[in-house]
Amino acid sequence: MMDFNFPKDRPIDVICLGRAGVDLYAKEENTDFLDVSGFDKHVGGSPANIAVALARLGAKPGLISCVSDDGLGRYVCDYLNREGVDTRGVVLDASGTRTSLAITEMKAKDCEVVIYRHNAADLSLTAEQVNQSYIASAKVLLVTGTALSSSPSREACLVAIQYAKAAGTKVVLDVDYRAYSWASPEDSATYYQLVASMSDIVIGNREEFDVMEHLVDQGNKDDDKTAKRFLTGSTQVVIIKAGEFGSKVYTRDGEYFAQGIFPVEVKKPFGAGDSFAGALLYSLLQGDTLANGVKLGSAAAAINVSRKTCTDAMPTKQELLDFIEQRNVAA
Amino acid sequence: MMDFNFPKDRPIDVICLGRAGVDLYAKEENTDFLDVSGFDKHVGGSPANIAVALARLGAKPGLISCVSDDGLGRYVCDYLNREGVDTRGVVLDASGTRTSLAITEMKAKDCEVVIYRHNAADLSLTAEQVNQSYIASAKVLLVTGTALSSSPSREACLVAIQYAKAAGTKVVLDVDYRAYSWASPEDSATYYQLVASMSDIVIGNREEFDVMEHLVDQGNKDDDKTAKRFLTGSTQVVIIKAGEFGSKVYTRDGEYFAQGIFPVEVKKPFGAGDSFAGALLYSLLQGDTLANGVKLGSAAAAINVSRKTCTDAMPTKQELLDFIEQRNVAA
Amino acid sequence: MMDFNFPKDRPIDVICLGRAGVDLYAKEENTDFLDVSGFDKHVGGSPANIAVALARLGAKPGLISCVSDDGLGRYVCDYLNREGVDTRGVVLDASGTRTSLAITEMKAKDCEVVIYRHNAADLSLTAEQVNQSYIASAKVLLVTGTALSSSPSREACLVAIQYAKAAGTKVVLDVDYRAYSWASPEDSATYYQLVASMSDIVIGNREEFDVMEHLVDQGNKDDDKTAKRFLTGSTQVVIIKAGEFGSKVYTRDGEYFAQGIFPVEVKKPFGAGDSFAGALLYSLLQGDTLANGVKLGSAAAAINVSRKTCTDAMPTKQELLDFIEQRNVAA
Amino acid sequence: MMDFNFPKDRPIDVICLGRAGVDLYAKEENTDFLDVSGFDKHVGGSPANIAVALARLGAKPGLISCVSDDGLGRYVCDYLNREGVDTRGVVLDASGTRTSLAITEMKAKDCEVVIYRHNAADLSLTAEQVNQSYIASAKVLLVTGTALSSSPSREACLVAIQYAKAAGTKVVLDVDYRAYSWASPEDSATYYQLVASMSDIVIGNREEFDVMEHLVDQGNKDDDKTAKRFLTGSTQVVIIKAGEFGSKVYTRDGEYFAQGIFPVEVKKPFGAGDSFAGALLYSLLQGDTLANGVKLGSAAAAINVSRKTCTDAMPTKQELLDFIEQRNVAA
Repeated sequence: MMDFNFPKDRPIDVICLGRAGVDLYAKEENTDFLDVSGFDKHVGGSPANIAVALARLGAKPGLISCVSDDGLGRYVCDYLNREGVDTRGVVLDASGTRTSLAITEMKAKDCEVVIYRHNAADLSLTAEQVNQSYIASAKVLLVTGTALSSSPSREACLVAIQYAKAAGTKVVLDVDYRAYSWASPEDSATYYQLVASMSDIVIGNREEFDVMEHLVDQGNKDDDKTAKRFLTGSTQVVIIKAGEFGSKVYTRDGEYFAQGIFPVEVKKPFGAGDSFAGALLYSLLQGDTLANGVKLGSAAAAINVSRKTCTDAMPTKQELLDFIEQRNVAA
Repeated sequence: MMDFNFPKDRPIDVICLGRAGVDLYAKEENTDFLDVSGFDKHVGGSPANIAVALARLGAKPGLISCVSDDGLGRYVCDYLNREGVDTRGVVLDASGTRTSLAITEMKAKDCEVVIYRHNAADLSLTAEQVNQSYIASAKVLLVTGTALSSSPSREACLVAIQYAKAAGTKVVLDVDYRAYSWASPEDSATYYQLVASMSDIVIGNREEFDVMEHLVDQGNKDDDKTAKRFLTGSTQVVIIKAGEFGSKVYTRDGEYFAQGIFPVEVKKPFGAGDSFAGALLYSLLQGDTLANGVKLGSAAAAINVSRKTCTDAMPTKQELLDFIEQRNVAA
Repeated sequence: MMDFNFPKDRPIDVICLGRAGVDLYAKEENTDFLDVSGFDKHVGGSPANIAVALARLGAKPGLISCVSDDGLGRYVCDYLNREGVDTRGVVLDASGTRTSLAITEMKAKDCEVVIYRHNAADLSLTAEQVNQSYIASAKVLLVTGTALSSSPSREACLVAIQYAKAAGTKVVLDVDYRAYSWASPEDSATYYQLVASMSDIVIGNREEFDVMEHLVDQGNKDDDKTAKRFLTGSTQVVIIKAGEFGSKVYTRDGEYFAQGIFPVEVKKPFGAGDSFAGALLYSLLQGDTLANGVKLGSAAAAINVSRKTCTDAMPTKQELLDFIEQRNVAA
Repeated sequence: MMDFNFPKDRPIDVICLGRAGVDLYAKEENTDFLDVSGFDKHVGGSPANIAVALARLGAKPGLISCVSDDGLGRYVCDYLNREGVDTRGVVLDASGTRTSLAITEMKAKDCEVVIYRHNAADLSLTAEQVNQSYIASAKVLLVTGTALSSSPSREACLVAIQYAKAAGTKVVLDVDYRAYSWASPEDSATYYQLVASMSDIVIGNREEFDVMEHLVDQGNKDDDKTAKRFLTGSTQVVIIKAGEFGSKVYTRDGEYFAQGIFPVEVKKPFGAGDSFAGALLYSLLQGDTLANGVKLGSAAAAINVSRKTCTDAMPTKQELLDFIEQRNVAA
């Protein structure tokens, strides 16, 4: 059985590295942008979401990111602090970048999201802004792949990972692929492969592994083959998610299992992956088995998508345990 | 007395060229971004505002601009159409640019506005997208200076002006200077001076004329000297605005007069200039004297700032006349 | 008859604005780059060539340009100084740009030229580096169109022209179109048209006038129509060159004439236009008729292309007069 | 004793990856650029030099690079082919990039070199242009660090290294740091550290190791500490060169030795490092000890700098052996 040997006695459980931004949700449900009267303000961004998920469960998360030094950036920091996320690693940038912004309709289907990420603050994070001893103060560094998509955030990421490896901090890659952030498919394949080989755990869906295999095995859809390819270098666990079909989990020492989803009424098409990653890491850090961790992750994902918002929809530990118990009884 | 000799019998009165975007106004008044719960959606952008101002008064305005081909861009077009603005010259761009976006607190003072203009759709307008016969179908081309701030919008502007001059369409420059859009003070001075010399009417405030004189007379604050300098080339009228102190108006043939403001309770710090330009042009196109036009402009500005929104706050002709009559009685 | 009314009593006859660079000519004639053993070093660049042409004839030329602050840039300055060109307006740039460089085979036909112009020093000239009183100290400002091709040199050009117009310095545009320097055909059409309308004399070949008419009359090949279009704004003279077929000359007051070429054995395919412009301006500044100026220009062009180098091949006044006399006798 | 276990039976001994360009040497020695009459044409660029060094010694080198599709680029390919370098991996780029060009005075001291590398062809090499099976057909991949300095060449390098590791091809990093090619000291530190950790042999001088330690140990000058830091990941050998003081060699299994230089009359200040790397790799591939390889490298460096040119100055095997024998006798 898998033993992660997380470092002990460190003040931070997981440092999430990547974007944190503002989400604006349409006030009216099932209404087009043309007729929406306004928007509600929330915090979003995959690493921010994962950090909040961890805090809700009782873990001690930190965030390394960059937001613009204006009312929106300060709102993001303030919200995360109040949620219990350590934001000492969040830079307020006054150079003219802008906090990542997603403006979204609230529709069951054909839901349009307009994203403002030109000159995004998070992608302006530099290698110099990453503090080596801060990385060394955490048990896990979780990198979301979007942070790799352009410079100087890419270099900040690569340096953070080198610091993590030097300090024994475990590295988790959540692929989090967004095509619009990358210059070319060759670039994404190059850096994802490189960082995957330096990570202890790699989490992505089938489409994201396609992106990573673009240069070496274009068109491959065979999860077993993919897992074998990526269980190299430092990588101990590969998790391939398939939405409603659940997840496949592979380990370096040959373990394999699948985890189904918990069926719920879906309120929105996002948030599942972030709650999954948060609950999985929380569970593993508690000393749970990989199988248990993946089960908790799936339950957290189910709870999140059954609620209307995203960060605010992350379950507490009690909600998570209650949910699983209910489902076990039902089964 | 000034005679503008506007071309007769053209289907469009004024084509406004420049940005059109979305304004998001904080739902709660006098509240920081940190605590605002959400935002109301409006259309904004100086040329769009002027076009709406003209339509409200009964003129036939058109807009040459570019918005992103997404829900926000389509909302802008739809709104302008419903207001009576001809949008055949508005391009929907699908190359990845974004509709200009301003997110604003609603505060009497220290009101913060966060502006998203990186890779802005309006600045992606190209010379090829400007239709020569469309320009020739209008009596006036009003250029807002921000459209000159970067390529390819800059070239689109310069070409539109060349088309206007070839077709006898009068050219009005509303300086509309925004420092953040320009690469350098030399650039803004260079292009503003050039375009001013090709314009029939030049409208700006003292700070904007400072920007235009940056290369040739840095530090000059003498309005008379400035007016003399700019009453060259094609320029017949120079209007220098001074906020609460009203406006100074100079003509090529030596006329000079000042126009005070109409005192009102100010609800927000923007919209005045756009209503001014709209009402002024409407009045001149009706055959009014320059003095009467400037008076109507000042009244429209007063009405606009006394209301909470911007585009929606543009007065109708009746409201404008009633306002002036009331004030005359009061005086 | 045309009277240019050049300003009197100014220390500089013609300021040429644009690039100055290094030309490396293959040591062996009629030899491919593969087998050439090395290169001879010369000064080149259209405005530098014209300035040298003027100096050789006895005029007082100046140059506004920018070269890199290294051995090659210093060589260019030193050479021009020794030839009698005033180089006070030449900036030595130490920001990392490079002096324009052309490496050329010496072949009668299919002569390949490899040009290094990425991040070219001359195109880094800024509006601030253009001295207003220096422009006012010259009778003529000759702008070569390549200087308009990109920023900040474009703005330096536009400002220089505005200074010239304010000071009564005559403006000559030598179109000098190089496709590789421009972002798009729309850009070149936009700026060439704009600057042509501000110039007293416009000189180009048929292909270059095609470039200028790209937006307004694509495909036009009618020189008369072209001349009529460009004899607008400030323009008094339009000269359309047609290589071996000589030149057509049109004036604002309706004069028209053609000038044939002086047949010689051609040694290289460049240099003709620069010697033409130099001798024409020299002649006009002497008070010659336009017809005589164009004749001298043609003779100078013939002499230049019959010699192996370019700048060094510019004729003196005596050589020019001897050449014309010989031909007249022969005829 | 170190055993490199180079793969056997592969058609290519060493693939060098990086730039290949043209060197123009001043015709006159000890003469300033101002007075030099012309230049002699040669091939240059560190990886090209190393490839030629290997070919001269009898090894089978290949080159992965990119040159411009013009007379200069074709000359580079043609020369390398004639020298016995396999150029199937050299791309001819027609997108407008330019072959790297160095123009140099020939002076004993204060020798100025003007380098044209803006939009350099070699730095335009893409990940897609790197052939996986070509890398697998070689025993060694030698990467010169300049290829890492900017995208897309950086990604081509990273992919090539990943292919090498998958195929068992040994990786050698020759740091070859050129400050002007890098965006920032953080970038160079980030990528050099990363690639060093994936390389079997790392070769650089003290200043280059300073560059690599910029983020983690700024100011360190202790070679032993540096070697210990870099003998991690895949790295088996670290060679720190110190010019006239020779080289220090460290291995993963604790071996350490120093190698002095062979004193000669130095004719030019470049070429030493490339001949060193070429002869060292040749020797190791022959099965020599590391100590012998480093000795041959030092001898080759001495021969190269005692000659006037660079690529043409690479010694043959016989010249190398004769040189060492002579020196041994002398000693």
